[in-house]
Amino acid sequence: MKTLVELIAKKRDGYEHSRDEITRIVSAFVAGEMPDYQMSAWLMAVYFRGMSESEMVALTEAMLRSGEVLRLDEVPGVKVDKHSTGGVGDKVSLALAPLVASVGVPVPMVAGRGLGHTGGTLDKLEAIRGFRTDLDAKSFARVVRDVGAAIIGQTKEIAPADKRIYALRDVTATVESIPLIVASILSKKLAEGIDALVLDVKVGRGAFMKDRASARALAEALVRTGTGAGKKVVALLTDMSAPLGRTIGNALETREAIELLNDGGPEDLRECTLALGAEMLLLAGKAESTEAARSLLEAALRDGRALRTFERLVEAQGGDASVVRDPSLLPRARFVVDLPSPTSGYVVGIDALELGLVAVALGAGRTKAEDAVDPAVGIELLRHQGEAVNQGEPLVRLHLRDEVDARRHEARILGAYTIEAAPPAPTPLVLERITA
Amino acid sequence: MKTLVELIAKKRDGYEHSRDEITRIVSAFVAGEMPDYQMSAWLMAVYFRGMSESEMVALTEAMLRSGEVLRLDEVPGVKVDKHSTGGVGDKVSLALAPLVASVGVPVPMVAGRGLGHTGGTLDKLEAIRGFRTDLDAKSFARVVRDVGAAIIGQTKEIAPADKRIYALRDVTATVESIPLIVASILSKKLAEGIDALVLDVKVGRGAFMKDRASARALAEALVRTGTGAGKKVVALLTDMSAPLGRTIGNALETREAIELLNDGGPEDLRECTLALGAEMLLLAGKAESTEAARSLLEAALRDGRALRTFERLVEAQGGDASVVRDPSLLPRARFVVDLPSPTSGYVVGIDALELGLVAVALGAGRTKAEDAVDPAVGIELLRHQGEAVNQGEPLVRLHLRDEVDARRHEARILGAYTIEAAPPAPTPLVLERITA
Repeated sequence: MKTLVELIAKKRDGYEHSRDEITRIVSAFVAGEMPDYQMSAWLMAVYFRGMSESEMVALTEAMLRSGEVLRLDEVPGVKVDKHSTGGVGDKVSLALAPLVASVGVPVPMVAGRGLGHTGGTLDKLEAIRGFRTDLDAKSFARVVRDVGAAIIGQTKEIAPADKRIYALRDVTATVESIPLIVASILSKKLAEGIDALVLDVKVGRGAFMKDRASARALAEALVRTGTGAGKKVVALLTDMSAPLGRTIGNALETREAIELLNDGGPEDLRECTLALGAEMLLLAGKAESTEAARSLLEAALRDGRALRTFERLVEAQGGDASVVRDPSLLPRARFVVDLPSPTSGYVVGIDALELGLVAVALGAGRTKAEDAVDPAVGIELLRHQGEAVNQGEPLVRLHLRDEVDARRHEARILGAYTIEAAPPAPTPLVLERITA
Repeated sequence: MKTLVELIAKKRDGYEHSRDEITRIVSAFVAGEMPDYQMSAWLMAVYFRGMSESEMVALTEAMLRSGEVLRLDEVPGVKVDKHSTGGVGDKVSLALAPLVASVGVPVPMVAGRGLGHTGGTLDKLEAIRGFRTDLDAKSFARVVRDVGAAIIGQTKEIAPADKRIYALRDVTATVESIPLIVASILSKKLAEGIDALVLDVKVGRGAFMKDRASARALAEALVRTGTGAGKKVVALLTDMSAPLGRTIGNALETREAIELLNDGGPEDLRECTLALGAEMLLLAGKAESTEAARSLLEAALRDGRALRTFERLVEAQGGDASVVRDPSLLPRARFVVDLPSPTSGYVVGIDALELGLVAVALGAGRTKAEDAVDPAVGIELLRHQGEAVNQGEPLVRLHLRDEVDARRHEARILGAYTIEAAPPAPTPLVLERITA
């Protein structure tokens, strides 16, 4: 049997690990027999050498098996979840889970928190007073069964290997590795007890993957590995050059998700949600075509089923469900300041990364995992991409803890906007669809 | 200022570190501010990305400055040392240091111990009763001044960064990296207070570098980096497919070195020693040509000056100098067993790696740094490469602790010999000379 050093050397030299070797590396690390310094050397070797599809499947499954796998046998039907690689203004999950559940597809969702310029579903839900994201496995299964959807955070029991490996990657410059990203995402998602998964791989300035080729490579690796691990998986590449929807900030985004569930909301957010939801229905066998799937979802938005499902989800998870009927009850910032447009023309670009970083600076997000977030603060885009504005008209509305933040960040916020004389050519939100 | 993670990412992405960045990495590591897991990730990134000449100089100097640099100002003349990358039967240092010193070039030598199949100068010297290799800096300088040469082990004070980095490389599969090898060798050698350095880069089965191209790459990196650090440096590539000389084992090799100092010894050992010694004299400005340098050295072997210098060195370092006059006083093994040749013909190959490993198994070397060695045991090649032998004539003489070792290792030892009907074409010992 090879020693751990020999296994590191094997990856370093570009050879393929057997399934057993990968299992051994992960279990030795979790058991404390492989010290951090050996794991980080191996991770860097993986960064340079990559992994074959079967290595990625083995790594995903070894990390999955390091913890508990949620059992949802008591929930009938094909259970489907959605995962996004993270963006700015991405409140899709809040609306998507109840929407898809409302047409009869169970959605057991384990979501994350915001870090850096990207927001997190849990932070947004916690803008609702009393909302608990820390349900135990039993309560989670119960809510999925009774409501059709539940949204919780990763428990300590889910894929502990991923938590420890991620913490090490974060401090050893080995985050940006497709096989490691794939195993990290899928080990957590597969621990939810799902049958199928739709992936939203974001591309552009505000996304983790800045260009289409690398986003496609990640999407393909995710789809192949998830399929290799026995799940139905499909991925959409979606545009994240500008923020999604008109709001950035936790309560603001929850409010916007509720607007969508009320059959309203901004067009890009609605399009992204319907496109992903249609894929979930297709994987669950609830519809035969994308068009049929979209019709089902649009009907659930129109007749209030989606909104009612969200209301029941909030209630079941301990939240104040009255906000669903009256979003003005959500936390509100003390100061609201509008920034006027410095010029007239059409908004042809809004830098999602810049606005995401400003939102963190305002208190909406985190630079470190242990930071607290302010649910009320954030940025509202009064003019979105493609829209016209006159000089002096309000362009952006800031929701602030402190009035001076407006002056402090004004230049950066306005600088994130590109305003030109001619309107931009319309760009599609869904760029590509990747299947097994 | 970049964070440590950013510095790891910089190397990972193939950018060149500034001198300050490398200094910061080494000092942060030594100070405990850069944990092992970050250092090992950086080392693996260096393994894949390599280093520029100026990065290697900066790394060498940062590791050098992590400890004490011996001051030999009181020793007049150009101080020259030799370093070998390690081989089997390589007892050159024992004869070379006193030989070169005997013609007036001071040799302050910090040597190493055997590990794996390669032997170490310190172990060989310690076969001499009382010989102390742990002189402090002051005594070391005194012996160099009084005798012309001294040979000690690496002190705790010399390049502690190298010790800690090497320990980490050993367990993270990052040993085989030219820039890291270069910095490790040169940081220790430059700490000796030398002005010039001759490198013996061994090539072949018994060497660290198995092929000529990688040996040449290492030699070139060593010469360029040493020159960049302000020293005169030259390297010879020498053959290490067969063992050097006729003996493997500590007391046996010390005896053979004394034979050479007595103007005897096997031809290949003599050739290797004179070739390296001539380079040392050239760097020290003691001779104008290789031929003139060799003549000076041959004269010192002939007239006994080299032997007398060794005698004084042994005495000055606390050893029993009577062994220099009478090598039969060196430790002797309890059992001596000759293995007969299984066939008649010419010895066309002797696998140095195999015999090195058998010598370790007999007790002459170490598999772990903390193992003790037996000075008396070893292998004597009664027939060397190119020599004829008849079936049944003694081919190899074993010096053993236990008689059963002969039977236990017979097949492997004889298997290391290739005997054919026709004599081999003579091969040169010195393959290449690499200068700045």
